[in-house]
Amino acid sequence: MGAVTTDADDERVERLPKQDRSRATRQRLLEAAVACLAERGWAGSTVSVVAERAGVSRGAAQHHFPTREDLFTAAVEYVAEERSTAIRELFPQGTAAADRPAVISALVDLYTGPLFRAALHLWVAASNEEQLRPRVTELEARVGRETHRIAVELLAADESRPGVRETVQGLLDMARGLGLANLLTDDTGRRDRVIAQWSEILDREIRG
Amino acid sequence: MGAVTTDADDERVERLPKQDRSRATRQRLLEAAVACLAERGWAGSTVSVVAERAGVSRGAAQHHFPTREDLFTAAVEYVAEERSTAIRELFPQGTAAADRPAVISALVDLYTGPLFRAALHLWVAASNEEQLRPRVTELEARVGRETHRIAVELLAADESRPGVRETVQGLLDMARGLGLANLLTDDTGRRDRVIAQWSEILDREIRG
Repeated sequence: MGAVTTDADDERVERLPKQDRSRATRQRLLEAAVACLAERGWAGSTVSVVAERAGVSRGAAQHHFPTREDLFTAAVEYVAEERSTAIRELFPQGTAAADRPAVISALVDLYTGPLFRAALHLWVAASNEEQLRPRVTELEARVGRETHRIAVELLAADESRPGVRETVQGLLDMARGLGLANLLTDDTGRRDRVIAQWSEILDREIRG
Repeated sequence: MGAVTTDADDERVERLPKQDRSRATRQRLLEAAVACLAERGWAGSTVSVVAERAGVSRGAAQHHFPTREDLFTAAVEYVAEERSTAIRELFPQGTAAADRPAVISALVDLYTGPLFRAALHLWVAASNEEQLRPRVTELEARVGRETHRIAVELLAADESRPGVRETVQGLLDMARGLGLANLLTDDTGRRDRVIAQWSEILDREIRG
């Protein structure tokens, strides 16, 4: 996740032109923000804590992200985009029907790492905080649409066939639920068996 | 949810024998605790806030529940048991295969009300608080097993057939994910379409 910065990172950043340096600082803040949210929750996540973790001054952090809400919603969005790119790169040739179990595993993986944990803290905080709620709602909708698009594409699902859209949506709901089941305990063993079974079912359903 | 108490409630409680009065007080505290957790999250949920909401003195509340962790884990457990009883009572004659869509709807309903919202706050808080974590982990496992048992029974699923156990587990994971999708926005329309489609899939799978 790149949240731990080293002296070597700092040196590399210092050698970059100003614009690139600013972009590198921004990325470090975003990655530190997601790690912080995942580990400490919303209550323990402030701009100061993230700035310190990223090795960036508080002033510089506030230059990039004027408010706490700005920082953490941008962080979840940034890491979600990174993950979207990464999952597409796993299947550079697109996918054949034979890859469906691998695609389903990769989709579920989106919901079991630090990004999901961070997003979950943000969603739950937003459910009680009026200041956060509209921004997180909009972010969730945007990330959700993009994940659905990736799923349809990689599963080679034909959404013009009745029911296929809802089948894919349900799969992503299941992935989200599996992520939640992994929050307090390592649920890997059970999850793998559920994925294996549902990969077979969904393959039949999507193949039609 | 019974969280709002009225003078009529108070009068009824006062007329009860001592042991029943104590039980009624306990129930009021548990229901108020779940409502409080659902509305205000873990950070805003203390024994004092719940005692006030339930119209019970702080001393009486602490007599029943010495710690904050005692109160809120007991509350989620109590309401989960109430919901389990209620879902069984919806299908008093057991279920025929034709009832599966109704059973699936009822199961998903377990994850979209104030109980799920309260449990979610507790889980997420437990993921960062060492004091809460082991108790909530144990509670989640217990409630999860009971929900699985109910699902198998009401869906008339034969778990001796390979894959059926995982099929039912995946359904409950999906239900949990649908609950999460309902946290910030009213997801009823989409959810109903997903449930309709997955009911058909499950019916084919469980029938074998």
